[in-house]
Amino acid sequence: MAEKLKLEKKNFSDWWDKVVSYTKLMDDRYPIKGVYVWMPYGHKAVKLMMQKVDTILEKRGNKECYFPLFATQAIFGKEKDFLDGFMGEALRITAIGRRKLDEEMIVRPTSEAIIYTMFNLWVRSWRDLPLKVYQTVPIFRWETKMTKPMIRCREITKFNETHVALATKEEADENIQEGIEMYKEFFDFLQMPYLILKTPSWDTFAGALYNYDFFTVMPDGKAVELGSIINLGQKFAKTYDIQYLDKNEKKQYVWQNTFGISERALGSSLSVHGDDKGLVFPSEIAPTQVVIIPILKGNPNDEKVLKKCEELNLPFRVHIDSSDSRPGQKFNHWEVKGVPIRLELGERDLESSSVMLARRDTGEKTPVKITDLEKTVSSTLTDIDKNLKKIASAFLTSMIKTASDIKSAETALKAGGIIKLPWCGEETCGKQMEKTLVGSALGINEQEKPSGKCNCGKSAKHYLHFARTY
Amino acid sequence: MAEKLKLEKKNFSDWWDKVVSYTKLMDDRYPIKGVYVWMPYGHKAVKLMMQKVDTILEKRGNKECYFPLFATQAIFGKEKDFLDGFMGEALRITAIGRRKLDEEMIVRPTSEAIIYTMFNLWVRSWRDLPLKVYQTVPIFRWETKMTKPMIRCREITKFNETHVALATKEEADENIQEGIEMYKEFFDFLQMPYLILKTPSWDTFAGALYNYDFFTVMPDGKAVELGSIINLGQKFAKTYDIQYLDKNEKKQYVWQNTFGISERALGSSLSVHGDDKGLVFPSEIAPTQVVIIPILKGNPNDEKVLKKCEELNLPFRVHIDSSDSRPGQKFNHWEVKGVPIRLELGERDLESSSVMLARRDTGEKTPVKITDLEKTVSSTLTDIDKNLKKIASAFLTSMIKTASDIKSAETALKAGGIIKLPWCGEETCGKQMEKTLVGSALGINEQEKPSGKCNCGKSAKHYLHFARTY
Repeated sequence: MAEKLKLEKKNFSDWWDKVVSYTKLMDDRYPIKGVYVWMPYGHKAVKLMMQKVDTILEKRGNKECYFPLFATQAIFGKEKDFLDGFMGEALRITAIGRRKLDEEMIVRPTSEAIIYTMFNLWVRSWRDLPLKVYQTVPIFRWETKMTKPMIRCREITKFNETHVALATKEEADENIQEGIEMYKEFFDFLQMPYLILKTPSWDTFAGALYNYDFFTVMPDGKAVELGSIINLGQKFAKTYDIQYLDKNEKKQYVWQNTFGISERALGSSLSVHGDDKGLVFPSEIAPTQVVIIPILKGNPNDEKVLKKCEELNLPFRVHIDSSDSRPGQKFNHWEVKGVPIRLELGERDLESSSVMLARRDTGEKTPVKITDLEKTVSSTLTDIDKNLKKIASAFLTSMIKTASDIKSAETALKAGGIIKLPWCGEETCGKQMEKTLVGSALGINEQEKPSGKCNCGKSAKHYLHFARTY
Repeated sequence: MAEKLKLEKKNFSDWWDKVVSYTKLMDDRYPIKGVYVWMPYGHKAVKLMMQKVDTILEKRGNKECYFPLFATQAIFGKEKDFLDGFMGEALRITAIGRRKLDEEMIVRPTSEAIIYTMFNLWVRSWRDLPLKVYQTVPIFRWETKMTKPMIRCREITKFNETHVALATKEEADENIQEGIEMYKEFFDFLQMPYLILKTPSWDTFAGALYNYDFFTVMPDGKAVELGSIINLGQKFAKTYDIQYLDKNEKKQYVWQNTFGISERALGSSLSVHGDDKGLVFPSEIAPTQVVIIPILKGNPNDEKVLKKCEELNLPFRVHIDSSDSRPGQKFNHWEVKGVPIRLELGERDLESSSVMLARRDTGEKTPVKITDLEKTVSSTLTDIDKNLKKIASAFLTSMIKTASDIKSAETALKAGGIIKLPWCGEETCGKQMEKTLVGSALGINEQEKPSGKCNCGKSAKHYLHFARTY
């Protein structure tokens, strides 16, 4: 029961494990480490989220496909950086039943090798470009790091990857901007504040030209990568021989981009928005947006109250909790579950034709006339979303600090959050700072003008962002 | 180009390969045998189909989950019949990168072992029942039989499996009927005629009590299993120790059912409905329901024609083909693609405010006033669906024959279709007939009263249905 659940968000790791388990988002008891089961409540949320991703992608002409789970060794090993980058965590299938396989297969840790084998067949002429496809699939990275439901898993169950082939470098750069716009729209939908940083050259995606990552800061002060926007250049095009005949009948290699997000976006959104009472769902991904609690007195009016609850018939995702528990227990239970709005309806409300509306985010309670209810619920959901975004943005801002030198950066980093340090732009300096700080270099914000000097004494070209990460 | 495509449905295997490839439903060129790539056109269709499955399942209280792809050997091997039934075709993961795994993992060929490991944790009391969950996931059966896109694959990409745990045998039997009703609704939606047969005891799903299968006959006369409704009894409950406390506080094993369908339903529906011109999509799963062909003359009116096409703004899945090809080529192309309705709009139509509507199924062309267009398209889609169902039903009926003895059954079976033979109900007789006929015993229709005598001379209790199968 909810009463027994002691939640303190400041102990984030414990808080997350408890809310995930209590609210039945995922079950972490499957007998393989780092592999989790989506329960109906969690699956509904992640499905609502991924449907939004589909809408955003389709609106811009990206089309859904499904590519195989397995790569052959031959195709997986074609791109050396990619092989080196992923093979260490890749699962190998070596046998069927009692027979050994003639050619081993790799379970996709990401799908470049698999998809570009097909792009090789699909791209013939400039008329086939741009080729814009995506899929939402499980991918597998058998990491040894600590695992956590949604946030760091070995089976990433809902990996949404977009792959684009374009005719020119200019179009590829433009499409990177389109990718950024799409992910902005997506994280805004989740009421998530973020930083968009260009990854340091030494940490760029295996085989890529450059990439941008979306980051936010988790309640424990660690940064988390929410999504990637990657310009692959022509490296894969050359490896997988993806060429088109241009308008002058000349063969050209395509330029390629890839973008990726996953259920980690849900995990991060819920981590950021939750509080000491439990989850707080942004309205669009809330499996239940409105819970109705009939206040029953054990008298003949109970039936009328229940009937009235049914009759409210609101055009939202509604659950009526007519279970045996006491109203107080129910309030508590649905607060932990993070339902944005609770409606209470008792016998007194029958006469006044009103209900009591309680907001999950502020706890505020207001009586609302039933005739106004639909409109009020709708505007309250919007208000809750705005408030969640406001609180989360203030938190993120408070977690980003600028340090003038590496000593103070070290101290700041221990307190958590993202630390910005003036940087000359040289790889050796960046790597040295990363080593000294025992934190990851996340990247730079290209729009931002730095002040101060790099560790080496030269003037700074950028702020390099550092954090401990998931 | 479509002109070069010679399609003859009577050469079904060739016809299927050609339409799947020309229409870009799937690509069969991936370098692993029996593994196919969903292209956007095919993926859209299978997604529309699976969304309908979700709706049907959710309406009856089944809730979506996602269970892991891998089983440990320990959990997979718990049920002996199940292990024997599936291990021969199961893929084994033995290593990560260069390291050997301490405990090998099995890629799910079906999810009973995985899901019931969780049911063991989820079921505690009668209040937890019925437990009704489903998932749509890829499953893997490394068969050696001939493979075919959608119809027989090693990676079944969209396997929809429902798993139900219930308190009593009676409830389980009732839920089997609910399963049958759900699948009837689903196949009706695909305009697919079917037979529902109870599987012979010797062919029942590994570990199950009894099961029903939905069958139809493909254009080449082979039967295909479209869906399964399986009563698992308590065997898995005992293996995975799934028990609940009943209202008298007594521990009881649950009763379990499982139902399954896959993309094979799409493949079969398209195989049955197609013709010598190509695909014919039932309206609900058509990626494009209406294709609009502007008839352009190379004069200034062209722009008006194109504008008018845009303005039609029909509330269906519409594609306007404004490509460079000639109208005749376009007609041909979209006929192969199976789009149910084609609208032609030229400069003459501007004055009359009408368009020409052509039906894919009959080829019939009718001018329609633009003011009536939405209503006419809607009713024509319904008519097309009805017509497809009628033709397919007549075909299935024509492919089911009753033989009085095994000799005539042998002859009939060579011509294809499903052959019914009087059967005493004894396993030895059934198996003997199966052996003699070189066809599979599909099962019996329990409602049907047979006449005639079994091969053994005893009077028949049922007709046993035989066919060559996919």
